[in-house]
Amino acid sequence: MQGNMMDVQLTVPTILERIRTQYAAREVVSLLVAGRDEQGNPVAHKHRTTYGQVADRSLRLAAGLLGLGLQSGDRVATLAVNSFRHLEAYLGVPSAGLVLHTVNIRLHPEQIAWILNHAEDRVLLIENVFAAMIPALKAACPKLEHVFVLGPTPQPIPLPGVADYDTFVADSAPLARYPQIQETDAAAMCYTSGTTGNPKGVVYTHRSTLLHSMVSAPKDALNVGEADSVLPIVPMFHVNAWGLPYTCAMYGAKQVYAGVFADGRSVASLLRDEQVTITAGVPTIWMGLLGELDRAAADGHPYDLSRVERLIVGGSAAPESMIRAFSDRHRLSLLQAWGMTETHPLGTASAVPAGVDPTSDEGFTLRAKQGRTVPLIELEILSDDGQRLPHDGKTMGRLITRGPWVANSYFKGEGQSNFFDLDGQLWFDTGDIATLDERGYMHIQDRAKDLIKSGGEWIGSVDLENAIMAHPAVAMCAVIAMDDPKWDERPLAIVVPRPGQTVTHDALTDFIAPKFAKWWLPDATVVTDQLPIGATGKVLKRELRDQYRGYSTN
Amino acid sequence: MQGNMMDVQLTVPTILERIRTQYAAREVVSLLVAGRDEQGNPVAHKHRTTYGQVADRSLRLAAGLLGLGLQSGDRVATLAVNSFRHLEAYLGVPSAGLVLHTVNIRLHPEQIAWILNHAEDRVLLIENVFAAMIPALKAACPKLEHVFVLGPTPQPIPLPGVADYDTFVADSAPLARYPQIQETDAAAMCYTSGTTGNPKGVVYTHRSTLLHSMVSAPKDALNVGEADSVLPIVPMFHVNAWGLPYTCAMYGAKQVYAGVFADGRSVASLLRDEQVTITAGVPTIWMGLLGELDRAAADGHPYDLSRVERLIVGGSAAPESMIRAFSDRHRLSLLQAWGMTETHPLGTASAVPAGVDPTSDEGFTLRAKQGRTVPLIELEILSDDGQRLPHDGKTMGRLITRGPWVANSYFKGEGQSNFFDLDGQLWFDTGDIATLDERGYMHIQDRAKDLIKSGGEWIGSVDLENAIMAHPAVAMCAVIAMDDPKWDERPLAIVVPRPGQTVTHDALTDFIAPKFAKWWLPDATVVTDQLPIGATGKVLKRELRDQYRGYSTN
Ligand SMILES: Nc1ncnc2c1ncn2[C@@H]1O[C@H](COP(=O)(O)O)[C@@H](O)[C@H]1O
Repeated sequence: MQGNMMDVQLTVPTILERIRTQYAAREVVSLLVAGRDEQGNPVAHKHRTTYGQVADRSLRLAAGLLGLGLQSGDRVATLAVNSFRHLEAYLGVPSAGLVLHTVNIRLHPEQIAWILNHAEDRVLLIENVFAAMIPALKAACPKLEHVFVLGPTPQPIPLPGVADYDTFVADSAPLARYPQIQETDAAAMCYTSGTTGNPKGVVYTHRSTLLHSMVSAPKDALNVGEADSVLPIVPMFHVNAWGLPYTCAMYGAKQVYAGVFADGRSVASLLRDEQVTITAGVPTIWMGLLGELDRAAADGHPYDLSRVERLIVGGSAAPESMIRAFSDRHRLSLLQAWGMTETHPLGTASAVPAGVDPTSDEGFTLRAKQGRTVPLIELEILSDDGQRLPHDGKTMGRLITRGPWVANSYFKGEGQSNFFDLDGQLWFDTGDIATLDERGYMHIQDRAKDLIKSGGEWIGSVDLENAIMAHPAVAMCAVIAMDDPKWDERPLAIVVPRPGQTVTHDALTDFIAPKFAKWWLPDATVVTDQLPIGATGKVLKRELRDQYRGYSTN
Repeated sequence: MQGNMMDVQLTVPTILERIRTQYAAREVVSLLVAGRDEQGNPVAHKHRTTYGQVADRSLRLAAGLLGLGLQSGDRVATLAVNSFRHLEAYLGVPSAGLVLHTVNIRLHPEQIAWILNHAEDRVLLIENVFAAMIPALKAACPKLEHVFVLGPTPQPIPLPGVADYDTFVADSAPLARYPQIQETDAAAMCYTSGTTGNPKGVVYTHRSTLLHSMVSAPKDALNVGEADSVLPIVPMFHVNAWGLPYTCAMYGAKQVYAGVFADGRSVASLLRDEQVTITAGVPTIWMGLLGELDRAAADGHPYDLSRVERLIVGGSAAPESMIRAFSDRHRLSLLQAWGMTETHPLGTASAVPAGVDPTSDEGFTLRAKQGRTVPLIELEILSDDGQRLPHDGKTMGRLITRGPWVANSYFKGEGQSNFFDLDGQLWFDTGDIATLDERGYMHIQDRAKDLIKSGGEWIGSVDLENAIMAHPAVAMCAVIAMDDPKWDERPLAIVVPRPGQTVTHDALTDFIAPKFAKWWLPDATVVTDQLPIGATGKVLKRELRDQYRGYSTN
C-alpha cells in the first residue's frame, strides 16, 4: 500500500529559498586576497555580505549561465578558494539544473586539464589568484567555452571567452522560476584519486545533497543552527567542504571563509574575531592552530576562543594526543568524523555515548576512533574472502559502506570493482581496513588502497612508482606512507637499483619532478636490495609499512 | 544527467537497526498502571527497559504479525497509551511492511469502531486499561481478526482471537530479514476530524517518517541527541506523538513515557526523576505543570528541573503569558511549534532569529508566533479568491502548505477539496488563517475550519449543531469555541428556539449526550433570537466569535 504524502523532491533550490526568505540578514564573511606584500605573500582583505545578497547573486548566476545556452545537466567547473563567490556557485549552479564541478586547485595543471576534459565542463569559474593558468587551460580544454574570473584582476584578461564574474552576475536578471529538477538529478561532482589510473568522478544528486545537509545538522554530528558562526577550513573543492556550505545555508548559520589563509595565525584570528562556534578541517590545519595557540599562550596573550564549541576534524585520523592537547591546554573540543569523496562525505562521527565523560580516558579513547554511523549509513567489515566479520572491536576487515549519499558508481562507469553486491544489496568498498565494536564504533587501522594522504590531499603511490621505475637505474620501487607530524603522511620511496647502478634521492626526484605537483614528490628514498613479494607476485606493502614504521627524515 | 548515488530507501527498519546496534543500552522508561486506589484512581508503576530489549521485542512482534498471515500493507491498529509497548508497535509494525494505525483513545466508542472499519484493521493492540471495550469493538468490527492486550489483565479475556501481547511477542522468533520496502510505501496512519462528515485518514510513508525524524532533530527544531532524555506527553495516537518516538530512536535519546499520568504532579516528578531534557505537549499540559510548579515553589519545595532544556508546545497556540510565566518564574524555556496530522506534524518552530535575546520583549513576541518553516516545508497565505498575499506580517490569509511530509490526499481519496493546484504545484489547505512576515514567521490568527480544540483534541462543531438542531424546541444553532484557561477552547452553543418554545442548557446536553464523548458536550448554551447570516445563507461564525469573545461560564 502506498502512503499519501506529497511527491516534493529534495532539491538545492529549497536551500536557496531558505536563505532568501528566512535568513536574508545573516552574514557571510570571506578573507580575500587584496594584494601581495614585499615578500610576495598574500595580504588579506575581509569582505562581508549577507545571505540575502548571496541569494540574489546566485539567482543571477543561475539565469546568466542558462542565458549562455547551457542545458540541464551541463557541468560548470570551479577552480576556486573558499569564499562567498564560491558559495554563490554552490547554490546558483545546481538551482539552474546544472552540475557544479569543484576542481582541486592543488593538482598538477595537467591533471586539472585532464579532469576538466573528462567532465566535459563548458564553463569554468576561476579564482583571480589562479588566473595565470587560464591560457594553458583554454588551450588544453577545447570544450571549455566560457571562463569567468572570480575577483578583480590587475588588468582585464584579453582572451576570447574570458570575462569578469562580478560583471556577468550583475548583468544578468535573477532567475524567475526554477527549472523542474528531479532529486536523482546530478547536482555536483568531485574527482578523487584513483589508486591506479586516472582520477574518478563522483556525481552527487540533489537528493544526496539535501539528505546530507539534514543529517549533518544535529548535535551528535556537526550541531549547526542559525545562531552559529561556522568556519569551514576544509576546501570547497573537497567533497563540497564536507557539505558545510549547504548545511549552514539550510539552517541559516553565518559562514566564514578563510580563502587562501589557512595558517594558524589567520585561523585563530578568524575564530576569535568572527565569534566562530564551529570549524572544520584536516589534522594538519589543527596542528598549525595548536602551535599558534600554544605560542600565544606562552607569550601571555592567549586568543579568546570561548565561543568555539567544536572543531571538526576529518580527512585523516586525528591522533588522541592532539584531541587531548586541545582539551587540556585550550579547553577546545575536537570531534572526529570520517567520510570520503564517495560518501559526500559524512559517514561517522565520534561523539561519546550517553553517560561517558568526553574528557575521561574512555572518552578520549573513543574520540580517537572514527565514530558511529550517522542515520542511514551502514558499515560492515569483510574478510579477504568476502565474509562479514564480527563487530568485536578487535577483528580487522575491509570496511564497506552503503547509504543514500554513497556513490553507486563513478562517472562514466569507471572503477566498477569498488562497487559490489552482498546478499542482494549494493555496497562500496572504502579501501580502509577497520574494526567495528559492539556499540558501533568504527576504528580505521590501515589502508588497503595504494594512496598516501598528505595534509588532507591524496598522493597516488602507484603513479609515483611507475614514474620512478622509468628511471634507467631502477629495478624495483615501492612508495609507501611514512608518518609525519605536520602533514600526517608523506611519501617514502623504497628502491632496488639495477645491478651495478646507484640511485640517489635527488636524482630520482629531479627525474620525476616535471610530472607531479611539487608536494607529491617523496620526502626520502631508501635504497635496498629487495622488496617483500607475496604469492601473487605483488609487493607486500603492509609488510613494508611495518618495516619502516617510525622512519623519519630528520 | 542523473547522479551516481545509491538508491537506498528511507525506511523505518533503518531506525530499528540503530537502536539495536548503536544504542542498545539506552533506557526506555514507562509509567504503567499497577492498579487502582480506594478512590478508583490509577496507581503508577515505573517500568524500565532498554532499546536493546525494545528492538528485540519489535522484531518478534514483526515476525509474529507476519506469522498470522498479514500481508504487506495490512493495517495494525493500536488503542494505547504512551509506553514501551506502543514504541515496539511503532518500530515493529512498519518494519514488517505493515501499517501502524494509531487510534485516538478519547473518541466515542462508536467513532473508534467506525475508524477501525474504515481502515480495515486486521489486528488491534489494545491497552489493558481499555480492555472493557473489546467485546463491543469485536462485535462492531468484523474484519478485526486478532486483538492483543498490552499489559496484564486480572483475568484472561475469554474471547476468540483475543490474546496477551507479551506472550505473543515472547513466543515469536525475531524477524530474520526485513521485507523489501519502498520509501513511498505506507508506514503509519492517523485519522483526523473532518470538519463535516467522517474522520479522515492520513497515511504516512516510510520516506515521510524518516525525513520528519531527520528534520526534527537539529537545535532550531527539537534539539534531540543521544545524551537527551525525552518525555513526549503528546499522545502516541496523535500524529505519531509529533514524531518523537522515531526521532529519539534514530538519535538514541532515552525515552520516558507517562502513560495515563499527565497531571502536573506526575509530569513534574518525571521531569525531575528521569533527568528529562526535552518534553512536548499541548498548552493544557503546560498549564497543569505551571500550576504544580507554582504550588511547589510557594510551599518552599520547588522541583529541581535544572536539566530540562526545552518544553515543546504545539497543537494549539501557546499564549505569550504562559511562555513568560515559565521563563520568569521557573527559568524554563518553551518552544512553540506548529503542525497538523496532515503534516506529520512538524511545519514550523518558533526559535528566535540569530541576534535576538529569547527573553527580550521582541523574543517573547516572536516565540508566541507559530514560527518559521523547517527545511523543505513551504507556506503561503491566499486571499479568498486564491491569490498569493504579501508576507508583511499584517495581511491575513488562508494558510496553505506543501512539503515531502505533507499529505497529498486522505485515505480512500476523501476530502479532495483540501488539496489543490497552484501554479502547477500541489498544496494543502490547512484551514488556518494566518499572517507571514518578512523573515518567514507565521502567526495563526483564526481558524476557517469549523472545529474546536479542547486540551489538544478536536471537537466538531457541525456535528454538535446537527445534534442540537434535532431537538424539537430548537430552530437554529451554532456552536463556536470560547476561550478557556485550562482547555484552551471549549464549545459554546448559541441557540435560537422555535417560536413559543423554551430551551435550557441541561435539556439540550441531556438530549445529545448519548451521541458524544462527555468532553464534547458544550459547557454553556446562550439563547438568543437570531444568528448573523451571510449572503450565502451560512451562519457567520467569525462574527459570532467576535460577539462572544471573552464569554465565560463563571
Ligand atoms: N502552535 C500552534 N498554534 C496554534 N494552533 C496550532 C498550533 N499547532 C497546531 N495548531 C492547530 O492544530 C491544527 C492541527 O491539529 P491536528 O491535526 O490535530 O494536529 C492546526 O491546523 C492548527 O489549527
